[in-house]
Amino acid sequence: VTSKIPKKQKPGGRRRGPPVARSFTLGELAGAVGGTVVGDPSRRLTGVAALKAAGPEDLSWAADDRHRNQAERSRAGALLVRSPEDAAGKDAVVVAAPTLALASWLEIFQPPARPPAGVSPGARVHRTARLGRGVSVAAGATVAARACVGARTVLSSGAYVGEGAEIGEDSYVHPNAAVLERCRVGSRCILHAGAVVGSDGFGFVWDGQRHRKIPQVGIVRVEDDVEIGANSCVDRATLGETVIGRGTKIDNLVQIGHNVIVGENAILCGQVGLAGSARLGNRVTLGGQSGVGDHVAMGDGATGTARAGVASTVPEGAVVSGMPAVPHREYLRRKVMVARLPNFVERLEALEKRLENAQKQEGERPWSSESPKS
Amino acid sequence: VTSKIPKKQKPGGRRRGPPVARSFTLGELAGAVGGTVVGDPSRRLTGVAALKAAGPEDLSWAADDRHRNQAERSRAGALLVRSPEDAAGKDAVVVAAPTLALASWLEIFQPPARPPAGVSPGARVHRTARLGRGVSVAAGATVAARACVGARTVLSSGAYVGEGAEIGEDSYVHPNAAVLERCRVGSRCILHAGAVVGSDGFGFVWDGQRHRKIPQVGIVRVEDDVEIGANSCVDRATLGETVIGRGTKIDNLVQIGHNVIVGENAILCGQVGLAGSARLGNRVTLGGQSGVGDHVAMGDGATGTARAGVASTVPEGAVVSGMPAVPHREYLRRKVMVARLPNFVERLEALEKRLENAQKQEGERPWSSESPKS
Amino acid sequence: VTSKIPKKQKPGGRRRGPPVARSFTLGELAGAVGGTVVGDPSRRLTGVAALKAAGPEDLSWAADDRHRNQAERSRAGALLVRSPEDAAGKDAVVVAAPTLALASWLEIFQPPARPPAGVSPGARVHRTARLGRGVSVAAGATVAARACVGARTVLSSGAYVGEGAEIGEDSYVHPNAAVLERCRVGSRCILHAGAVVGSDGFGFVWDGQRHRKIPQVGIVRVEDDVEIGANSCVDRATLGETVIGRGTKIDNLVQIGHNVIVGENAILCGQVGLAGSARLGNRVTLGGQSGVGDHVAMGDGATGTARAGVASTVPEGAVVSGMPAVPHREYLRRKVMVARLPNFVERLEALEKRLENAQKQEGERPWSSESPKS
Repeated sequence: VTSKIPKKQKPGGRRRGPPVARSFTLGELAGAVGGTVVGDPSRRLTGVAALKAAGPEDLSWAADDRHRNQAERSRAGALLVRSPEDAAGKDAVVVAAPTLALASWLEIFQPPARPPAGVSPGARVHRTARLGRGVSVAAGATVAARACVGARTVLSSGAYVGEGAEIGEDSYVHPNAAVLERCRVGSRCILHAGAVVGSDGFGFVWDGQRHRKIPQVGIVRVEDDVEIGANSCVDRATLGETVIGRGTKIDNLVQIGHNVIVGENAILCGQVGLAGSARLGNRVTLGGQSGVGDHVAMGDGATGTARAGVASTVPEGAVVSGMPAVPHREYLRRKVMVARLPNFVERLEALEKRLENAQKQEGERPWSSESPKS
Repeated sequence: VTSKIPKKQKPGGRRRGPPVARSFTLGELAGAVGGTVVGDPSRRLTGVAALKAAGPEDLSWAADDRHRNQAERSRAGALLVRSPEDAAGKDAVVVAAPTLALASWLEIFQPPARPPAGVSPGARVHRTARLGRGVSVAAGATVAARACVGARTVLSSGAYVGEGAEIGEDSYVHPNAAVLERCRVGSRCILHAGAVVGSDGFGFVWDGQRHRKIPQVGIVRVEDDVEIGANSCVDRATLGETVIGRGTKIDNLVQIGHNVIVGENAILCGQVGLAGSARLGNRVTLGGQSGVGDHVAMGDGATGTARAGVASTVPEGAVVSGMPAVPHREYLRRKVMVARLPNFVERLEALEKRLENAQKQEGERPWSSESPKS
Repeated sequence: VTSKIPKKQKPGGRRRGPPVARSFTLGELAGAVGGTVVGDPSRRLTGVAALKAAGPEDLSWAADDRHRNQAERSRAGALLVRSPEDAAGKDAVVVAAPTLALASWLEIFQPPARPPAGVSPGARVHRTARLGRGVSVAAGATVAARACVGARTVLSSGAYVGEGAEIGEDSYVHPNAAVLERCRVGSRCILHAGAVVGSDGFGFVWDGQRHRKIPQVGIVRVEDDVEIGANSCVDRATLGETVIGRGTKIDNLVQIGHNVIVGENAILCGQVGLAGSARLGNRVTLGGQSGVGDHVAMGDGATGTARAGVASTVPEGAVVSGMPAVPHREYLRRKVMVARLPNFVERLEALEKRLENAQKQEGERPWSSESPKS
C-alpha cells in the first residue's frame, strides 16, 4: 500500500523538475544580462561551469583581472568578463559585474524547480489557517491553527508553521524547517532544511535548588529577503522580539540567542553564534565560527573575521579578530609578536649572559644571583 | 483535498492558543508572587516588558540595584524590585528575587499554549507502544514499537520516539526532535525542535584499509527536568550509557559525544561540544562555543568560559579559559602580557642598543655581532 | 482514531527489535573473531562492557598494554586482548587487534535493529520514484519524483529524498535526515538524524543595494561507505559538485560548504566547519571544532587538531594547530613561550633596573629617561 504523490495537484505557473540542458548563444546571453559580445555572437553553449571545470561547450566567468591567468588556461567556450582584456582571446560577453551577470543568467538558464501550487494530500493544514494564492504545501508539511502563509510560498515536506505564525509571500521553507508559534517571517525569505525559527531562549534563574525556567513568551521577527541556513536556530525573545533585519543572509548551523537584533543586509557565516541580546548593525559581517557575547553591540558595517570572539562594542566599520576580538591590525601585530617570541627570548638570554660576563670582569658579585629565573 | 487537523480531539484541561492580553493589578501580582506592594495596589497593568521596552501599562523588573538607573528612565507602569529604593519612585512589588518572581508571574500570566490531549489523526503510534494518560501526539509524530510515553507528555509534529525508547511524564518534544531507539528521557524534560537524542557515537577503528565502524549499542539516559536545545545532539554510548544529569540545561547546537557523563544542574551554552567520555560534575557551566576533550573531567561547580577548550582535568569550582584552557586569572594575565608584547620588544631593543653603544664606548668588540637576530 | 504502524509489512530477512541478552562462550567468541582462547573456552558470558563497567558475566577488552592496570582491576569475566600478558590472569581471547575484534563481535552479538522491507502506509513515494529490492520506507518518509533508492536502503520516519536524488544500496537514512534534489549518496552510507545533504551553498554578490543570491545549481556527491553525523550539513556546489570521498566519516553538527572536496577515509570530528571550496586529501583528520578556510587545501594524511583554524595550505602528513593553524610543534612552542611571558618580563625588568643602576654608578644620565615604557 503506497501513498503516491500526485504528479500535478494543480497546474503550476512555473517549470518543474530538474534543470534541463538547453543551449544558448552568446548573443542571447548578452541580451539577457545587458552586455556586449566580444567575438562570435552565434557561438552556442550548453552549460555553465567554473573556469577549471568548464569545457568547450560551457560558459564560464572571470570576476576580475586576478582571474586572467586562470581564464587563459580554461577550456571554457566563452566567458563573462569585465573587460575585453580579461577574455584572454576567447569569445566573451563584457559586463560591468561578471558575477552579478552570472547570477542573473543562472536564474534564467537553470531556474529552481518549484513544486506546483496547492495543498498535497498528506499535508496537515488546520482549518483556521489562512493560505494565500498559489501556496504550495507538500505532503508531510504542517500549518497549525491561525497560522498565515502568504501567496506563492512553498512549504516542503516536514516543514512546520506553528500556531499563529506568519510567513510572507514568495518564501520557501525547505524540508523539516520550522517556524514556531507566533513567529513572523517576511516575504522572499528562504529557510533551509532543518532551520528553526522560534525555539525558546536559554533563560534560567537559580532558585537555590534548581535552574528555574524563565518562560520565553516573546517571538522572532524575520524581515523580508532573509535567508537562514540549514539547521540554524533563532531563539524567540524572553519578552518582545528577536529580530533578523531585511536582506540578512545566515549560513548553516548558526545560533542566534534570544532578544538579539540583527540589522539589515548582514552576513553571518557558518557556525556563527550570537549570545542573548547581542546587537548587530546593518551590513555587519561575521566570519565562520565567530561569536558575539551577550549584550555586545557591533556598529554598521563592522566585521568580525573567522573565529573572532566579539566580547565588547565594535565601532562602525571596524574589523576585529581573535578571542577576545581586538582590531584586526592589532591582532595581526600580536600574532607576529608571539611567533617571534623564541627570538626575543634568545636575545633576552644573550643580554643576560653578556651582562653577567661584564660584571664578572668588573669583579663584582655576578648579577645572575639576583636575576629571577623560571 | 486538504487534511485538516480537528480543532479539538479531546477536551484538554489547559488553556490553548496564543497568550491573551489580560489585565492584572499590582495587588494580584503581589499575592501571586508573595511580595509587598509599594504604592497603589489597584494599579492596573496589561503586559510585561523589559525596562527599555515597557510602556505605562506594562510591568517590568529590576533584578538588582545595578538596574536602578535604567529603572528610573523606564516608562514602565510598575516594577518588580528587590527593595523600595530600586523602584525609583514607581509603583512596585518588592520581592526577595525579582527575576524568580518574574518567572513565576509569566507562568501564570502567559501560560504556554499546550495542545489538547489525544492522538491526532495522522499521528503514527505503533500498536505495541504505550501512552500514558493525557499524552498529546500531533499529526506527523511517530511513536515506534515498544516505546513508552509518560502521562501528559506532548509530542509535536515530526517528533520521533524510536523503538523501545521511553519518555517520562509532562515532557515536551518539539517539532522534528527525535529520541532514538532504546534511549530514555525523564519527566518534565523539554526537547526543542530538531534535537537528537541517541545518534550513534563517533567510533571507528582503522583496519588497515578503511575505518571500521564500532557498533554503538549503548543508549542515552536523560534524567528529569533536563532541557535540550534546538538541533543539539546527544550521542548514544558505545556500550552502556551517555548520561545527562537531572536539571541540566543545554542550549542550541550543542554536541555531546558518546559515553559522556554530565552531572546535575549543569549549564551548557550554545554550540558547546563535549568529546567522547568527557565527565562533567554537578553545576558545571560551559560558556558558548566552548569544548571539552575526550575523557577530560570537570569537577562540581567548575566553569569553562566562552570558547574555552578544556583539555585537562578541571578541579571543583575552578574557572578556566582559553585554548587549551588554563585558570581564568592565568588566561587574563597571559592576554595582558601578549597585548604588551610590542612594548616589551621595544624595551628589549632599547637595552640591546644601549649595551652596544656602551661597549663601543669601551672600545671593545661590539656585542651585536654575537647577538642572535631573527 | 489512531494510525498504527503494522508490526510487519513484509517478512524481513534480519532480526528485528532491541538487542536481546544472549549468552556465548569464549570458544564461540574465539571462533567468530579468529582468536585463541587463554583459559576456559567453555566460560559463558552474557554481555559486553567497558573495563570499568564490566561484571563477572561480561566480556571486556584491552586495546593494548597501556590498559593492563585497568584490566587487572576490572571485574570482567573475560577479555579480548593482544597478548596473554594483557589478560591479567583472566580468561581471555587473544587476537591481533582487540578493538577490531570487539567491533566484529558486537556486529554478531548485537546486530542493529533493522526495519522490515517494504513501503509503510503513510510513507510518501512519488509514482516516478524507483525503489530497489528490499528497500524500507517508514511512515512519514518521503521519496520525491524521479528519486532512486538502492536495494535494502532504509528510509526512516521524516527522511526526505528530493527530486531526482539518488541513494545507493544498503544505506541508512535516519529520522528527519534529508538528501535534497539531484544529490547523490552512495552505498553503505549512514545519514544520521537531521543530517542535510544538498542545502544551498552560501553564495551572494552585492549589487550595490542588496546581497543578490547566486543560484546554487550544483549538487553534492557522497561516495560509498560515508557516515554523516546528526544535524550535519553538506552544501551543494554553486556549479558542479561538492564531494565527500569514499569511506569518510563525519561527526555531528559539521558544516561543509559549497564546492568542498573531501578525499577518501577522512575523519571530521564534531562541529568542524569547512568553508567553500576547501580541499581535503585522503585520510585527513580534523579534530573537534576545527575549521578550514575557503579554498584552503590540506594534503593526504594531514591533521588539524581540535579547534585548529586552517587558513593556508597544509602539506601531506603535516599536523597543524592553533588559529591560524601552524605546525603543531611550533604551536606548542609558542604556547610555552606565552605561558613563560611573565618570567621573561621579570627578567627584562631586572636587566633594565640593573643597567639603570650601573649607569647611575658611572655618573651618567640615567638610561631610564630614554627607555620607552608602556
